[in-house]
Amino acid sequence: MLNPGTARRITDAVDTAFDRQLEFTAELVRHPSLRAAESSAQDLMFTELESRGLAMDRWALDGDALAGHVGYGPSTVAFEDLTNVVGTYTPQESKGRSLILNGHIDVVPTGPEDTWERSPWDAEIKDGWMYGRGSGDMKAGLAANLFAFDAIRAAGLEPAATIHFQSVVEEECTGNGSLAALQRGYTADAVVIPEPEENMLVRANVGVIWFRVRVSGKPTHVREMSSGFNAIDAAYPVMGALRELEAKWNADQGSHRYFEDVHHPINFNIGMISGGDWPSSVPSWCEFDVRAALYPGIAAADAWGEIEECLRNTGSEANVSAERTGFFSEGYVLEEGSDAEAVLASAHEGVFGSALRSFTTPGYLDGRVFTLYGGIPALTYGPVSEAIHGFDERVHIESVRNVTKTIALFIADWCGVDESA
Amino acid sequence: MLNPGTARRITDAVDTAFDRQLEFTAELVRHPSLRAAESSAQDLMFTELESRGLAMDRWALDGDALAGHVGYGPSTVAFEDLTNVVGTYTPQESKGRSLILNGHIDVVPTGPEDTWERSPWDAEIKDGWMYGRGSGDMKAGLAANLFAFDAIRAAGLEPAATIHFQSVVEEECTGNGSLAALQRGYTADAVVIPEPEENMLVRANVGVIWFRVRVSGKPTHVREMSSGFNAIDAAYPVMGALRELEAKWNADQGSHRYFEDVHHPINFNIGMISGGDWPSSVPSWCEFDVRAALYPGIAAADAWGEIEECLRNTGSEANVSAERTGFFSEGYVLEEGSDAEAVLASAHEGVFGSALRSFTTPGYLDGRVFTLYGGIPALTYGPVSEAIHGFDERVHIESVRNVTKTIALFIADWCGVDESA
Repeated sequence: MLNPGTARRITDAVDTAFDRQLEFTAELVRHPSLRAAESSAQDLMFTELESRGLAMDRWALDGDALAGHVGYGPSTVAFEDLTNVVGTYTPQESKGRSLILNGHIDVVPTGPEDTWERSPWDAEIKDGWMYGRGSGDMKAGLAANLFAFDAIRAAGLEPAATIHFQSVVEEECTGNGSLAALQRGYTADAVVIPEPEENMLVRANVGVIWFRVRVSGKPTHVREMSSGFNAIDAAYPVMGALRELEAKWNADQGSHRYFEDVHHPINFNIGMISGGDWPSSVPSWCEFDVRAALYPGIAAADAWGEIEECLRNTGSEANVSAERTGFFSEGYVLEEGSDAEAVLASAHEGVFGSALRSFTTPGYLDGRVFTLYGGIPALTYGPVSEAIHGFDERVHIESVRNVTKTIALFIADWCGVDESA
Repeated sequence: MLNPGTARRITDAVDTAFDRQLEFTAELVRHPSLRAAESSAQDLMFTELESRGLAMDRWALDGDALAGHVGYGPSTVAFEDLTNVVGTYTPQESKGRSLILNGHIDVVPTGPEDTWERSPWDAEIKDGWMYGRGSGDMKAGLAANLFAFDAIRAAGLEPAATIHFQSVVEEECTGNGSLAALQRGYTADAVVIPEPEENMLVRANVGVIWFRVRVSGKPTHVREMSSGFNAIDAAYPVMGALRELEAKWNADQGSHRYFEDVHHPINFNIGMISGGDWPSSVPSWCEFDVRAALYPGIAAADAWGEIEECLRNTGSEANVSAERTGFFSEGYVLEEGSDAEAVLASAHEGVFGSALRSFTTPGYLDGRVFTLYGGIPALTYGPVSEAIHGFDERVHIESVRNVTKTIALFIADWCGVDESA
């Protein structure tokens, strides 16, 4: 437990540097770090971490090593384009508990930019929100990690345990970035991941599987189409079969701890579709990409088996096949009662003046990597946002300030602090 | 009416050159003359026509001139890549009726090549059929035009009227190729178009409109998808609304001459679809390409008005918009009783030993250009084929032989012949 004076020095330091923090966040947002195009943003992260005197590590993901891991998600991009950045702080004398401050640098596509009210990459601040693709998910969080650390030193203190800052790729598609960091040997007594979580702590979340369904057959000229096969038509009942499986899994929510009261916890999203080659030819093929969710405790392989069975029994006369195209992850639960959670709750209450609330989220989180495969309590906790993955994504500025203060207090309490020499 | 001896000399000449005709047809098929990639095939046509001493003309389509024509189909490719080839035969003395021998060089995409039993471009002959994309639709016809003409001269005769050989582009998407030939001033007393029509004459056919429908809205993160908008889902009822319009138009077939007994004459084909940007984002947009048919006598603008009204009243909460992307054509009827038809019927009966049958086809044909805008009777008549626009497209060899003979006899009878000097 920090004494109030120390805590005050730290939170004041967050306030003092907050304009610079926003500037840095905006600079990060201005790098369109879409999948496999994260390099310039990672360069910036590397430079910032290095300038703080951290020991730097940057490496390309190792496809062979990843492919042997049960939590690996099949990749559809080249691994050489995917690099993680880690900066490590090592104290003079290690007395406290070590920590990973994790965040992902990759962002999802903008969708049609003309549906945005502004450029997705201008990071404009307006009416208390910062806009832009990745502003909430999760460049504000990456910056919060960094400036929380800064605040401790700006307050004349030094953390008393090892801290690894991780800026990882692939969180939006496979989870292979955090998995690669774990495989590289990075471990700690706790991990903080400031995803946009409405100033709350994630208690449990779903696993996610990505797959692509191909529906095909042999049609002929459009003038004979009424007797023929049309793959676009045939795709919709296949989607319908998957929706039935989704409904079945949702109906089972009562038997899954922390999911009993979540509204529609299992979402099967048909996120992309393509099909056909020519307007006047009856389409012979149609493919669609699905993101399916599964409850914690269910192996991805078992869920995948059910999905495959569903696709074998659609009753369609078409050829229906599926391949995995990304996430192949299980969900996780942050077990109640950990020291890490207690320290976070204390920090949060000190900043917000209200108790830390936890909740269950139906979206993928890298927390599963640390929890399931590292035995590390994962504190996924971060600012208020709106429209992540949508248009005019934005993050709430004052929430970012308070989350940064909470993380700073957490670092100080968890790692311990010494007065600077 | 040709005397039997002359006719026999001509049909024998077709037989004599038939192996070379098949070789040339195969060579044409081996040029994958997909849209805007017809150059090498047009080079071949140009060389072949020129080697026969014809006066050559090759020109790029003129977008501005075309755009002013009511039969113009909006183009989505650059006009400079689209060239027509015409070779003109002029007799020493013009005594007979002039003729256009028309065919299109463009072919539709193959679809997934692994669904073919062989390469779509190898033009293999097997069990009496020549296989390949474009074999039936309509390179066999283009070659038949040319070798029918050859046969007359090989028989020691010279046609006694002007003949324009046209190898046009854009028949599979806009019809702008034949329209451009008409605009360039090519006209005649009749036109023969050997499309794959089962050894029959097309009496009537539909008009076609191509358009792309865009369904869009503002969704958000997949974790909130149950409350949100999904454009791929939303596209399906919009297709359903179009299907209702299709059913309405089909129900009206009884009031359209020559369509009373056609099975399902009006086809709305959803030929292509695309949508969404990311599997884990709820899709904000979905586009699909439609090929719609309309009866002869209905202005394309009127049909389009009905389609637009249909799309305004789908009841969808989505934004639904549509743009025209190709064909904007009316259908046509070949009125009974023309001299041209009588001459063709006579030639056909002389070769096949059975009466020429006519029928109504629910697919687009360039015949509408000559009929509607040139006042030229269009004889769309050609060989037996299977799976045009599908997989393993093929054309029946003996049918090609007989159609070539019929066209040769038609030329001789229509244009008249003189003994060669």
